Amino acid sequence: MRDPRFAAWRARADAALARALPDPADSPHGLHGAMRHAVLLGGKRMRPLLVYAAGAAFGAEEPLLDAPAAAVELVHAYSLVHDDLPAMDDDALRRGQPTVHVAFDEATAILAGDALQALAFATLARAPGDAALRVALIDTLAGAAGVAGMCGGQALDLDATGAAASVTLAELERLHAMKTGALIRAAVRMGALCGGADADALARLDRFAAALGLAFQVRDDILDVEGDSATLGKTAGKDEAQAKATFPALLGMQASRARLDELRAAMDAELGALGARADALRALAEFTLTRSH
Amino acid sequence: MRDPRFAAWRARADAALARALPDPADSPHGLHGAMRHAVLLGGKRMRPLLVYAAGAAFGAEEPLLDAPAAAVELVHAYSLVHDDLPAMDDDALRRGQPTVHVAFDEATAILAGDALQALAFATLARAPGDAALRVALIDTLAGAAGVAGMCGGQALDLDATGAAASVTLAELERLHAMKTGALIRAAVRMGALCGGADADALARLDRFAAALGLAFQVRDDILDVEGDSATLGKTAGKDEAQAKATFPALLGMQASRARLDELRAAMDAELGALGARADALRALAEFTLTRSH
Repeated sequence: MRDPRFAAWRARADAALARALPDPADSPHGLHGAMRHAVLLGGKRMRPLLVYAAGAAFGAEEPLLDAPAAAVELVHAYSLVHDDLPAMDDDALRRGQPTVHVAFDEATAILAGDALQALAFATLARAPGDAALRVALIDTLAGAAGVAGMCGGQALDLDATGAAASVTLAELERLHAMKTGALIRAAVRMGALCGGADADALARLDRFAAALGLAFQVRDDILDVEGDSATLGKTAGKDEAQAKATFPALLGMQASRARLDELRAAMDAELGALGARADALRALAEFTLTRSH
Repeated sequence: MRDPRFAAWRARADAALARALPDPADSPHGLHGAMRHAVLLGGKRMRPLLVYAAGAAFGAEEPLLDAPAAAVELVHAYSLVHDDLPAMDDDALRRGQPTVHVAFDEATAILAGDALQALAFATLARAPGDAALRVALIDTLAGAAGVAGMCGGQALDLDATGAAASVTLAELERLHAMKTGALIRAAVRMGALCGGADADALARLDRFAAALGLAFQVRDDILDVEGDSATLGKTAGKDEAQAKATFPALLGMQASRARLDELRAAMDAELGALGARADALRALAEFTLTRSH
């Protein structure tokens, strides 16, 4: 990810998150500490970068983008906390750090996730910008976070785990379009909304973001097969061990790589009309297609 | 609860909830079914009734109140699902029905709670009314649901359970003001906002609602001591068995009843200036003070 603006945008997002999160010196300390721990586990800040990059493509002022950048990361962070719980994926480590229910306890992890989701919507409700924009941002994020998006996709994923043999390619694409794709699309749409993009531009950006979300997952599945655990920062080969439905398992590795090439072409086509203004989005797409971790 | 409007308001709230909830015939079926099950366990629809009653006190049109009535109940319902989880209060029954993690499974219960919270904010974002009103409703509900309200109060409650001896009256009141009081205050405020109440009226209603929330909890604690399990629909004496901090444990029964009388007087005083327009709020206060279950 070489765009020179990324470091500054990450710093803006981190500052907005620090402003939004409760002070760990205040009671209840455990809950506040767990919320901060959860947000630190988020990692690359891919979704905030998508908000800023999509905003830049339409000339949005950066201060207007801080709240949606923080809000989408708060939703992402809460989803990781809940996905890691013993009743869900039962993960003890994320990015080399203990997950929230390990560092704190299970009850605190459930509450921290719940409170992070509420904080995401409070952050948007209290953002600058006119009320109509804020309502559109909240509508976008709430839709992506709920049954038609992230939560629905996670439910489909739990249903599919251990049943890889019976999952079709269409079902696998729907699962990922909901589980990870919806939040990526929301990030791009929120940035574009802040820049006043019209309906045609929003539709074009949404097709770009849908391809990006799918590419993210195909690349993730390929890395799980060919990566080594040290580079990935997580256990390689875990998908096959868990009999998870994946693109390589359904299509083979060669066809999975070919699918990434198709998605690259689709993304290029959607961004074409935006010219150099979309360079940051192009850099994020290229990173997604070629990342090694 | 004798106000003749309550039955109609409950029916409006239930219809709004039915419109908002996803179709159980659609996939993922388990998640959709769990969300509906959770909302059915909500019970008396006290919080939606407070939205309609506060709205009526300021002449709000009823269709404007449907979305906040449904949204506050969705947040209440999700909180019950998560509070009942094994890692939290570990309850298998609520209102004589199996709790969501028992009727479905733990992962589905976590996701259903998460999706219900997202649905609450989506419902407000897509409501009728101008954008500034919708932002004010979302701000109110998100604030009440988060660390400074319901989630924070639940964290304090978990910290206090088993440590009744060391909890002061001030700490107990803060805990309940956050855990149950914040959502009750939000319900009243949202109704008043829909009626265009001014800042003075909002402050007066907020003092009424804070007293109502506290009265609800004091009455709950008294019932746990003197009620029988059949009338309560839950196990009486559970608080003492769990060494929970309660008002009777801290103050004794006589002083707890005297506290209810003080709260009744405080509520009457706040509603005085509103005259007959506040009759529905008065009926809900009286029910809260005298309920036997």
